[in-house]
Amino acid sequence: MSASARRAVAAPRSWFARVCVGVPAPVDSTFRIALNAVNLNWRNVAAADLIHDALARRTGGKVDAHVTLDNDVNVAAWGEFRAGAGRDAVNMLGVWVGTGIGGGLVLNRQLHHGSFGTAGEFGQTWLFPGSGPAHLKVEHHGSRTFIVDDLRRLIRANSPSSLREMVDGNLEALTIAHVAVAIEAGDNLAIEVTRHAARAVGIAAANAVTLLSLDTVVLGGGVTEAVGHRYVAWVREAFDDAVFPERCRDCAILPTQLKDDAGVVGAGLLAWTRSEQHS
Amino acid sequence: MSASARRAVAAPRSWFARVCVGVPAPVDSTFRIALNAVNLNWRNVAAADLIHDALARRTGGKVDAHVTLDNDVNVAAWGEFRAGAGRDAVNMLGVWVGTGIGGGLVLNRQLHHGSFGTAGEFGQTWLFPGSGPAHLKVEHHGSRTFIVDDLRRLIRANSPSSLREMVDGNLEALTIAHVAVAIEAGDNLAIEVTRHAARAVGIAAANAVTLLSLDTVVLGGGVTEAVGHRYVAWVREAFDDAVFPERCRDCAILPTQLKDDAGVVGAGLLAWTRSEQHS
Repeated sequence: MSASARRAVAAPRSWFARVCVGVPAPVDSTFRIALNAVNLNWRNVAAADLIHDALARRTGGKVDAHVTLDNDVNVAAWGEFRAGAGRDAVNMLGVWVGTGIGGGLVLNRQLHHGSFGTAGEFGQTWLFPGSGPAHLKVEHHGSRTFIVDDLRRLIRANSPSSLREMVDGNLEALTIAHVAVAIEAGDNLAIEVTRHAARAVGIAAANAVTLLSLDTVVLGGGVTEAVGHRYVAWVREAFDDAVFPERCRDCAILPTQLKDDAGVVGAGLLAWTRSEQHS
Repeated sequence: MSASARRAVAAPRSWFARVCVGVPAPVDSTFRIALNAVNLNWRNVAAADLIHDALARRTGGKVDAHVTLDNDVNVAAWGEFRAGAGRDAVNMLGVWVGTGIGGGLVLNRQLHHGSFGTAGEFGQTWLFPGSGPAHLKVEHHGSRTFIVDDLRRLIRANSPSSLREMVDGNLEALTIAHVAVAIEAGDNLAIEVTRHAARAVGIAAANAVTLLSLDTVVLGGGVTEAVGHRYVAWVREAFDDAVFPERCRDCAILPTQLKDDAGVVGAGLLAWTRSEQHS
């Protein structure tokens, strides 16, 4: 169980009659089972039941909570749509760029789960089908992991960059915060690598808009927050190159407003709506 | 005006009180303007008004038709969903593989147009962003045009194939019908090129399902009809490689049932629904 789930279980019972938990995985169509949580090494974990039972156990059976799951980026996208950057959207994609890349879709003002409940896996779409298995997907080119690893590799291969000095030669200590500072200072290597990553995200976002005619893309996650407006501009640049037809360039590309709170706000709103539907 | 539009205008007026015309272009959100019809060299053509006025003129003002447009593959996808291979679908993508590649999306049992009315442009999504401008898109790798051109190029470069003899050395006469016969007879070159094209379509279909959690993909168009079940199997093979998560392999991939009639059936059903909504 994660630290946040443990905290939830330890909190006063009256707070948690309605629970929605964002998990880093697609969930099944009943919102009870986390399917493939790659980063946690989970497969088909009935997390909603586990949380329900843990809450009941910790409260001596006094809390019979209504618990559902959703993908962590779905709940963040829902938060931005209801209370953040996507408030004016009708059809919206949320893209969270961090360790991996997650996505969440709002279509016709509803969170879209699709037939298997798994919709939104933007980072898992293939963008370079001719490449080796570690370079096929949007996530392989656009994530924070890619940016930091690629910079380490290039600096070790003696590409000049202010980043080497910034971490006193200890490249393992390199983080996206250093990269953001280097970009701000005009470091060419940091700019080039991050721009390549942003380009992958922008082209994939364009593909989603070409397919779905979305009016809004909201960018969140560690990379968006660290690099800021330059990152959004690089995504936009690639998006405009790739989207079809031209009219879709009217799509807004906006940074997160709720930042770290997007998921909590979205999950809270979903918990409420879903328990209302069941009561 | 196309031959089919001319025939429509020349026909007895009572047939056309309700009209929906499928056009090879994305349309605007009022269903009245064809935006970019690449193959017809149209840009922002108010075709619904043109057809309405032509009908009125030809009938001495007696017909004031309710005319809307939709993308040609949208109407075909709607036909398959309502009366063909997609009858059991909830979330469906139609992919029509011919001169180009078009797509149409049914989400939650509704034709999805999105915020600018342009949704479904599957063939225009980018799959090889590192390539030159003529090789970026799904359409550039998967269409009949690609298959036939690539075979001509390879045979001219002396790749062995039964196709050369089949067209008496006149490669300009080569069609997808010849390619289908060659595939059936086990011609390696025809198989290799068509399989590459099917792979591009299968990966892009997987991307759509990874993003949207669709339960059904219906394949239509000249290539699907000519090459048949082998083509569908090759698309399936690539789809299964690329789709995420595994659960989405339950998505059905089916050939068109209505074939050439899909568009007519879908447009007829749409014309009816839309005029009812306005009456």
